[in-house]
Amino acid sequence: MAFNPEYDSIAKAFVQHYYSKFDQGDGAARAQGLSDLYDPENSYMTFEGDQCKGRDGILQKFSSLTFKQIQRGITKCDSQPLYDGSILVMVLGQLKTDEDPINPFSQIFILRPNTTGSYFIGNEIFRLDLHNN
Amino acid sequence: MAFNPEYDSIAKAFVQHYYSKFDQGDGAARAQGLSDLYDPENSYMTFEGDQCKGRDGILQKFSSLTFKQIQRGITKCDSQPLYDGSILVMVLGQLKTDEDPINPFSQIFILRPNTTGSYFIGNEIFRLDLHNN
Repeated sequence: MAFNPEYDSIAKAFVQHYYSKFDQGDGAARAQGLSDLYDPENSYMTFEGDQCKGRDGILQKFSSLTFKQIQRGITKCDSQPLYDGSILVMVLGQLKTDEDPINPFSQIFILRPNTTGSYFIGNEIFRLDLHNN
Repeated sequence: MAFNPEYDSIAKAFVQHYYSKFDQGDGAARAQGLSDLYDPENSYMTFEGDQCKGRDGILQKFSSLTFKQIQRGITKCDSQPLYDGSILVMVLGQLKTDEDPINPFSQIFILRPNTTGSYFIGNEIFRLDLHNN
């Protein structure tokens, strides 16, 4: 493997796909839509400080989120290639769930190539950008 | 290489070290303090959308920043281990340079092990969390 010269277009296409699946108000549909993006064992995801490992734990976390509606805007999407063919992605955006106020968020992904020529999420971290604690 | 079980303590120690070197008001001192954290060739850094590759380009960018004083607070620091022994770090915080207002920021790092048992920054992305564009 080597640096993937197409990293930025892959990153931007991935981000669109990911949020189209994530932003479903039904938890079961969300989990089903995201399922093939995670490895059964080798995916890490940290959501607001809670770390999960492996597809089942990650999808369980996401399906437990209780919002009914979510609106999302992406402000910035930066990406970089990694030496092993993986792709690093950082997203800054804003989201609004149900009647909550608009909140800024930061989310990062490492997309790892799999044996079939597509990618899975090896690592993912999500935080609301709240600094009032 | 394999997942490093000490990833979180290494991440937090790195972050303290990095900002102690970065937050110097003199550009030349900043570049000198950060110099040994980057590889001559295999480090990527994206600063507010500008991508640099390799130690010299990265340090040139950092030494060109013109603030005289910077105050910084770290709100959250999340980390994850990578399969090859690297460590993924995401920092959310707030900073204030000179007389500018306080701004929130997001910054991520991939720390890669080198042959001497320490780490270098393989990948880094910095953004102010501004959503008013």
